[in-house]
Amino acid sequence: MPNIIYEKIEGISKITINRPEVLNAVDDITLIELEKCLEDSKKDENIRSIIITGSGRAFCVGVDLKYVKSFLEKGEKFPYGDMLRKYFHRVILSIISLPKPVIASINGVVAGAGLGIAFACDYKIASNKARFVEAFINVGLVPDSGSVYFLLKSISLPKVMEFVTLGGEIDANEAFRLGLINKLVEHEKLEEETIQIAKKYAEMPTKAIGLTKKLIYYTYHKSLEEVLEYEAYLQEIAGSTEDHIEGLKAFLEKRKPVFKGK
Amino acid sequence: MPNIIYEKIEGISKITINRPEVLNAVDDITLIELEKCLEDSKKDENIRSIIITGSGRAFCVGVDLKYVKSFLEKGEKFPYGDMLRKYFHRVILSIISLPKPVIASINGVVAGAGLGIAFACDYKIASNKARFVEAFINVGLVPDSGSVYFLLKSISLPKVMEFVTLGGEIDANEAFRLGLINKLVEHEKLEEETIQIAKKYAEMPTKAIGLTKKLIYYTYHKSLEEVLEYEAYLQEIAGSTEDHIEGLKAFLEKRKPVFKGK
Amino acid sequence: MPNIIYEKIEGISKITINRPEVLNAVDDITLIELEKCLEDSKKDENIRSIIITGSGRAFCVGVDLKYVKSFLEKGEKFPYGDMLRKYFHRVILSIISLPKPVIASINGVVAGAGLGIAFACDYKIASNKARFVEAFINVGLVPDSGSVYFLLKSISLPKVMEFVTLGGEIDANEAFRLGLINKLVEHEKLEEETIQIAKKYAEMPTKAIGLTKKLIYYTYHKSLEEVLEYEAYLQEIAGSTEDHIEGLKAFLEKRKPVFKGK
Repeated sequence: MPNIIYEKIEGISKITINRPEVLNAVDDITLIELEKCLEDSKKDENIRSIIITGSGRAFCVGVDLKYVKSFLEKGEKFPYGDMLRKYFHRVILSIISLPKPVIASINGVVAGAGLGIAFACDYKIASNKARFVEAFINVGLVPDSGSVYFLLKSISLPKVMEFVTLGGEIDANEAFRLGLINKLVEHEKLEEETIQIAKKYAEMPTKAIGLTKKLIYYTYHKSLEEVLEYEAYLQEIAGSTEDHIEGLKAFLEKRKPVFKGK
Repeated sequence: MPNIIYEKIEGISKITINRPEVLNAVDDITLIELEKCLEDSKKDENIRSIIITGSGRAFCVGVDLKYVKSFLEKGEKFPYGDMLRKYFHRVILSIISLPKPVIASINGVVAGAGLGIAFACDYKIASNKARFVEAFINVGLVPDSGSVYFLLKSISLPKVMEFVTLGGEIDANEAFRLGLINKLVEHEKLEEETIQIAKKYAEMPTKAIGLTKKLIYYTYHKSLEEVLEYEAYLQEIAGSTEDHIEGLKAFLEKRKPVFKGK
Repeated sequence: MPNIIYEKIEGISKITINRPEVLNAVDDITLIELEKCLEDSKKDENIRSIIITGSGRAFCVGVDLKYVKSFLEKGEKFPYGDMLRKYFHRVILSIISLPKPVIASINGVVAGAGLGIAFACDYKIASNKARFVEAFINVGLVPDSGSVYFLLKSISLPKVMEFVTLGGEIDANEAFRLGLINKLVEHEKLEEETIQIAKKYAEMPTKAIGLTKKLIYYTYHKSLEEVLEYEAYLQEIAGSTEDHIEGLKAFLEKRKPVFKGK
C-alpha cells in the first residue's frame, strides 16, 4: 500500500497515514487503504487494540485539495456527496463499529475531514504539537466526516457554533482542557506513551469494549427507557463472554484477571 | 424492611440503603424495597422532597457480587438481562418519573449500578469522601443502570469513553469540577447540608418541578420543534396549578410566595 | 414599530428590543415586530449578519407580567400554550432557521423567555453586566422558549437541573467560563465589539453558515449514520455555491478569498 504503513506487534496494529509531503491529506486511494487496514485489524483475532497516526508533521489535514483541483482542471465538479459516501464515511464508520479499542495518536495538525478521523477514535493521545484546525468554512463548505457530531458531544453548543462558522484552531492544551482529547504528552514521548496505552487496552476484556462502544453511540439519540433496554440486551451478551467469567473469578479470588478478548 | 431505613420528617422522606457490611451492594430484595419507598414518597401528598443515601462508608456499590456468586454456585448463569429489567430499571425509572425532587446525598463510594442510582437523582450533594468508581469493565461487563446515559449528558464523549473502557475513579473534587455533582461539602456536614437542600426543595412549587423533570428527559433526543411543542403543553399544565397563581400574585404584590405543592 | 428599533448598515441589520421601561419584557405585539424584522433580514440579500440587542439595562426579561396580569384582571386564564405557539416559538424558530449568522449582543439582564431568544442566536457576545436569570420556577412554571434545549447542549445535566428547579442566576463571568457565551467584554465596549463580530460574519460565506446551522440542529437527535448522510447532502449544496469556488481558487492562488454570500 503506497499511502499507508501497516504494522502489527504483540496484539496491537498500527496504521500510519504516510503522505507527509501533503501533510497526510487523503484521496480515494488512501481512504480505501485505510479502510482495508481497519478491516484486517477487525478480523485478526490476535489484534486487540489499534493505533492510527500520521507520518511527519501532521496527523491528517483532510481531503487533498490537489485531488479536488484535478477534477476542476478536467472541467468537472468535485463530487462531494459521492466522495463522502464512498470513502470518508466508510472509514469513520469502520472505526466506530470496530469492536476493539482504536487509539488516535495525534502527532501534529489535524484539519478538515482529519478531525472526523481523529474524533472517531476511542482514545485520543496528543503531542503538545497537535492542533485542531477548522478550515471548511474558509472554503465555503460545511464541516463533514462527522466532526460536528463529535464536537457537539464534547464541548458546548456556543463553542462549536463559533468554531465551525468562524473557523480557527484549538491547540493541544486547549483541547485537553476542553476534554476533546484524553492525554497530552511531550512530542518526543508520544510514540512511547501511545504504545503503553495500546498495550493496556490489549489486555482489557475486548468484547466488553466493543459492546460499550455500541452502547455509547446508541445512547445519544435515544430515550432513557430505550437505553436501559439496550443495556440489558448488551449485558446478556457481555455476561456470556469468557472474559466476564474470568473477571468474576479473579474478583472473588482476589487476584488480577487475565483477559483473552473472548 | 431489612435492607432499607425509611423515614419521614416535615415534608421530606429519607431512604437509606442499609447494608453497610457489603458497602450497600444491592440484591433483588433491596431493590424491591427501594422501589416501594419511592412509590410511597410519590403517593404521600405531604412529601415534597426525597433523599436517597447510604449507611456507613458507601453510598452504593451496585449489584452484590455474592448474590451473583450464589447463582454460579448453583451452576446457573446470572440472568443479567432479567435482573436489570425487573429490579434495577424500575428503581432508575421510579426516580426519574417521580414528580418531586429527589436528592442523592452521596456519603462515600459509588460504583457499578450505584452510579445509575446516584446520577438519576435530581440534585447531587456529596461528601468530600465520595468517589465514583467505574468497575464494570474490570469484570468484562458493559456499564448498566443508565450510568452511560447520565455521563454522556454531563461530561465530554472522550472522557466518558475513557472512564467506561479503561475503568478508574473520579473523586469528589473532580466530580464537582466536571459538573457531575451539584454541591461538595465536608463529610461531617453532609447530613446537615442535605437537610437544608431538602427543606428548600420542599418549599418549591412541586408540580412545576415534576413537569420540568419530564421536559428535561424529553429534550435530549428530540428536535427543537418537538421540544417547543412539549414546553407549550407542559406550560398549560403548570399555568393551571395553584402554585402558579400564588407565584404570580406574590410577584405582583412584591412578597415571598408560599407554595403548597398543588 | 413602537417596540423595536430596526436598522441596517453595510450588510448588517440590528434589531433592538426597545421597551426599557419594562426591562424589554415582551408581549404579542413586540414578538410580532421582532419576527417581522427577522423575516426582513432573511429576505434582504444585502444583509449578511444580524444583531439582536436590548435598549437600556436589560437584554430581555421574557413575557411582560403586566400583560399576563391584564388577562387575570379580565377574569381570564393566561393562554400559555397559545402564546408560546403563536408568538414565542415563531421568534425562536426564525432565528434558528435564518440562513445567516445571528448575533446576540447581551447588554444586561436576560430572564424567562429572554433566555431562549439569547441562546437561540448563533454567537453570543456579552457585557460584563449581563446576567442570566432563571425565574420560571419562582412563579411555578416550567422553563419555556427552548431555554432548556439550549442549556442541555451547553452545560452538564446536574447543573441544568439545579438551575431550572431551584432558580437563580449565572453572571457573565460564569457564563463565559461555562461556555454559554462566546465573548465577554467591558460594558462600554459592547457595541463596538459587536459591530466588529458582525462585520467579520458579513464577510464569511453566508450560505455555508446557513447550511452549517441546519447541520448542527439536525445532529443532536440523530444517529452518526444519519448525520453523515445529511452532511453529504449539505456538502453537495455548499460545493455548488459561488463562495466555495472562490474559496478554493483563493486557496490554490494563496490569496484571501472575497466571499459574496452567494
